This record gives sequence, C-alpha cells and structure tokens, in this order.
Amino acid sequence: MMQQDTILLSHGSGGSLMHRLIDEVFVTGFGAAGTPALDDAASLDVAGGRVAMSTDTYVVSPLFFPGGDIGRLAVCGTVNDVATSGARPLYLSVGFVLEEGLPIEDLKRVLVSMRDAAEEAGVRIVTGDTKVVERGHGDGMYINTTGLGVLAEGVDLSGSHCRPGDVVLLSGTLGDHGITVVSTREGLEFSTDLRSDAAPLNHMVAVTLDAAPDARCFRDPTRGGLASTLNELASASGVSITVDELAVPVHDQVRGACEMLGYDVFQVANEGKMVTVVPADQAEAALSAMRSAPYGEEAAIIGEVGESPAGKAYVRTSFGATRIMDMLVGEQLPRIC
Amino acid sequence: MMQQDTILLSHGSGGSLMHRLIDEVFVTGFGAAGTPALDDAASLDVAGGRVAMSTDTYVVSPLFFPGGDIGRLAVCGTVNDVATSGARPLYLSVGFVLEEGLPIEDLKRVLVSMRDAAEEAGVRIVTGDTKVVERGHGDGMYINTTGLGVLAEGVDLSGSHCRPGDVVLLSGTLGDHGITVVSTREGLEFSTDLRSDAAPLNHMVAVTLDAAPDARCFRDPTRGGLASTLNELASASGVSITVDELAVPVHDQVRGACEMLGYDVFQVANEGKMVTVVPADQAEAALSAMRSAPYGEEAAIIGEVGESPAGKAYVRTSFGATRIMDMLVGEQLPRIC
Repeated sequence: MMQQDTILLSHGSGGSLMHRLIDEVFVTGFGAAGTPALDDAASLDVAGGRVAMSTDTYVVSPLFFPGGDIGRLAVCGTVNDVATSGARPLYLSVGFVLEEGLPIEDLKRVLVSMRDAAEEAGVRIVTGDTKVVERGHGDGMYINTTGLGVLAEGVDLSGSHCRPGDVVLLSGTLGDHGITVVSTREGLEFSTDLRSDAAPLNHMVAVTLDAAPDARCFRDPTRGGLASTLNELASASGVSITVDELAVPVHDQVRGACEMLGYDVFQVANEGKMVTVVPADQAEAALSAMRSAPYGEEAAIIGEVGESPAGKAYVRTSFGATRIMDMLVGEQLPRIC
Repeated sequence: MMQQDTILLSHGSGGSLMHRLIDEVFVTGFGAAGTPALDDAASLDVAGGRVAMSTDTYVVSPLFFPGGDIGRLAVCGTVNDVATSGARPLYLSVGFVLEEGLPIEDLKRVLVSMRDAAEEAGVRIVTGDTKVVERGHGDGMYINTTGLGVLAEGVDLSGSHCRPGDVVLLSGTLGDHGITVVSTREGLEFSTDLRSDAAPLNHMVAVTLDAAPDARCFRDPTRGGLASTLNELASASGVSITVDELAVPVHDQVRGACEMLGYDVFQVANEGKMVTVVPADQAEAALSAMRSAPYGEEAAIIGEVGESPAGKAYVRTSFGATRIMDMLVGEQLPRIC
C-alpha cells in the first residue's frame, strides 16, 4: 500500500519513493501488458529489418470522459499512428509528467485503461519514465507514448501515393471524440449517448491492407479532423480530393452539437477512425474488410481523388455545389488529445 | 517568418498555424539532424534483429543553464540511456509540450541545441509531435525523447550481471549537473566555473565495451545520483558494492556547494557521466578506454563488488570507516532533468 494518496514531488526524485511508486503502482497497473523495466532501455526483438516509429504526447483535458480517458487515448493514438504506416505495432514506451497532488487513484485508473487498450491492440509497454512537476505546472497528467512496429517487406504506404481515380474510404462516424471531450469539459449536456471513439485500429488496417494490397495510405484524422488529413494528402500527392457530404457518416447528436457550437464537423478530432485511399478496383474489397473489422461497422466510401486543382480538398454539398474543405486556421478545440 | 513571436494555443490545433510552425521552425531548427516527417510514423532501417528502446521526459527548470539547456539534456539523456544497454543509438523521436506564451526564440534556441547534440551523438531525429497547453499549465516547455538503437549480436548487458570481485568505474566528476541547475534556479553564485556536464556518452560506451568485452553493465547516474545507481545494481545482482570516497572525482566548487546546501554528492544528478562494472582483469583496459573517450578524461576506478550483505552499497570514507550509501528518500532537487 502506498502511504500517500496523492503524488508528491519526491515521487519524481529517483529515490526510494519513486521506486515504490514504480513497484506498487506501475508494475501492478500494467500487469501482463507491461514489462518491469529495471534497465534504462528495453531491448526488443524485431523480425526483419524495417521498423516504424511514432510519438505523441497527450494533454487532453479533462483526463476522464465518456468512452475513454487519457490512458486509452495515449495507447490508441500511438498504436494508430504506427499502424497507418502499414506496420504491425509491437512495443510502446510511456513517459508521464505528473502534477504534484494528483490522486494516486486517478493514476491507477489510467494505468488500467492503458493496460486494457494495450492488450486489445496486442502491444506491450516495454519502458517508461515518470517526472513530477509542482502543483500549478501541469494539469494532473500528461502522457507521451512512442510506438514501434515492424514493416513487412514491400509495404510502402505514403500520403504522397494518391492518384487520380483513387477512392477515399472512412471507417465510421466523424466528430465523436472532439465533441465528447469539449462537452464534458464545458459541462454541456447534448446527449447521454455521446462517447469518444478512442480505439485501437491496427487490426482494421491489417485486414484492409490484406484486402486491398495496393492501398496508397492510411491516416487517422485526429487533430484538425478530416479536413487536415485530406488537405495533407492532396498536397503531398499533388492531386485534388473531393468528398460527398452526404456519404460521410455523422451521428445526429454530433451534427447537432456542431451546429450549436459553430464547429465544422470536418475539422473536429477523431481518435478511432481511419481514412484510406485505394485504387478504384480495390474499393469494394477494402470497404468489406473495414466493415468486418472491430470499430469499422459504419465504414463508407466518401469520395474520390481527382487531377486538379492539385493540393486542395473539396466537399460536394447536399445541394450539389462544391466548396473548399477548409483547414482549421485558429484554435477550435484546444486540449482535445 | 512567423508572424507571432510567442506560442499560441492555435499552434497546437492541427491546422494551418501548426503546419507553419513545423515548416518554419522545426524543419529549419533540426536541419540535417532531423527528417521532415510528413507521415505519422517514421519508417527506419535497422540492421539485425534486436533493438533497444528508451524514453524520458525532461521538465528541467530553468530551461537554460550554464553548460546546456533542456534540448541538449533531452538528446543526451536518452542517447545515454540507450547506450547503457550496449546498443548503438540511431534514432530519436521528440514530443514537445509547449506553454502558451513561450517565446518562439526560446524554442528555436532549444532546437539548435538538440540538433547539435544529435549530430555529436550521431543520431537522427526522425519523428515528432507538438502540443500546446494554456498559460499556467506548463512551464515553458517539456520535452519527451524516445531513443532507438541496435544491439550487436551477443551483447547482453544487465544490472543483474555484477559479480563479487568486479571493479566499478566512473567516467568523471560527480554532481556538476545537479548543482549547476539548482544554483542557476535559485540565483546562487557559487562559482562562475560551475557547468552542467550534459553530454552524449554513446561513443564512450562503445570504446569501453570494445576494450572490456565482458563488461557487466553501464549506467548513467542521473536522478538519485550514484547512490541510486549503485544500490540498484547491488540489488539487481544480489551483491554488495563498496566505493572509496577518496577515489571519486568531485570538483571543489561542487563539493563546497554540497556542503553549504546540505546535499550528499552521491545523491546529486549527473547528465554526462557513466558508471560501468567490469571483471577485475579488464579494469585497466576499461579505464584507458574511458579516459581516451570524449568526456572521460577524469575517469577513475572507484570501488569493487563484494559478496555480502547482498543488495547494499557502501562508502569507505577517508577515515577508513564504512557507511551505507543511502538512497535519496524525500525530494532533494526537483525538476533537475
């Protein structure tokens, strides 16, 4: 039993209190998903010679929200970033910045949620670090996760590979994560059904890539939403991308919240959605694969790649007009991930 | 040119301001040491099948201090952690948490310092992430770095490999980093010569391992200082470790500052020192190798491994007495790395 109920500065000192925190809270919390890392670096077996590495720091506020918490987000977000490269995610590192005064119970809850997400994704947490900052210099907890995955021979996905004629797929509804977090934070009660979509999508990417081996790329439309993702792809590939507004799945309560708050749902962050661009003749196979995967039941074909104007993304509206899909310029939803 | 001189919340939004920050500040700042990472994950070639991975978040306060800054620390600290496993560090990821209002000039200065340290260590910064938190929810800048290195076949270093009769080496003076940071922070002026020792030690580890191929382990005595390191090794190996107080190099101004502030120099953090334990018949070779390496000029043999009492570290004082080398219990120097 920890004698302290909250995090103290001395939990970050490298001394005996830090050792007890590691032994009694972290090792227990991560369970089989973690490795008690007694040495400073984890040494890992990787089959083959090419690995994918991705990092993200999570500063979401509040730490807990319907459908998830910062821990689930930190595992899923990085697993998904590694998976977008076509790699099989295997290992995660975790770096915590804890604020003095954080209830140890909150930390334990987050660790359990990280363990569950890691087990679901099939990744192991192999090394970690904890720092403690004084009260007022953090916000409870920030978490960095860095993920490592192995790339199979021949897999070469890139945002620059989209070609005119390709088809754009989305694995499900837009906006659930961003709207859930902002409404929890602001105390808005749009609907009791609103839940973050935070989920590990590595299995979905794997089956989709099996079904559509010439897939150009995968992207998880997180910060900046679908608008940032598609504008980045259009720019990297030198193509235009046009999305059918009516084809994009959006939950009614999310659509309603966006209207009330003045948000563009295409710019709202998602944490459990995947975009993929595939050659037209593999689109149906990719769609079936996505729909058969966990979290992909509502997958849809939402648009296509065109030649010009290069570097831009467009929306074909329900009235048949076409407008630019604007990227976020200022700040819409801070601290969403 | 960035139109803003300070970090805004919208620099973390995933929108166009974040893209400009990446293009105009990060890509320029890292130069050849970095890779413009347009995809979410970096894909990396690793020769051989075993990699070492280590992570650390740096929250040092102040951000700049004599001999270094948070950027140099973030590169060197993680490079050194990877190197302790015997791996050759190759790649780093970088995750920033920036506080709203941080001067962009400070960020640029830190990036240059990361670039220089990465070039010196021979590692590349291959992927990154930036989050922005509101004024008052950070402390200018926190940086996570995660490092990846390759392990040569047959290399198997571990803190549990120390055996009675082994010899303990230290690569130079103790306490320089911790005392420099705390005296900068508190406005104490002990000496104008006081400088952090933050440095990449991967080359030193490599030449020492060449010279002493049966080396048991390497450790960088950072938070918790030499006392934590030796107690951890004694515990992991089930041996006792005894250090000769007179053999441990300490700069006079550090010794004086420790006396004034009531610190035990064995508990003060170092960021450019390496401890290694080697079989007695390879100790001289290891010492010569360390001394020939950058940052190892003052390397010394400081102690030896004994049988019992297992799990404890001791100091043989200048008076010939032996006392327990206590691990830090409470908080001595917060926010030192």
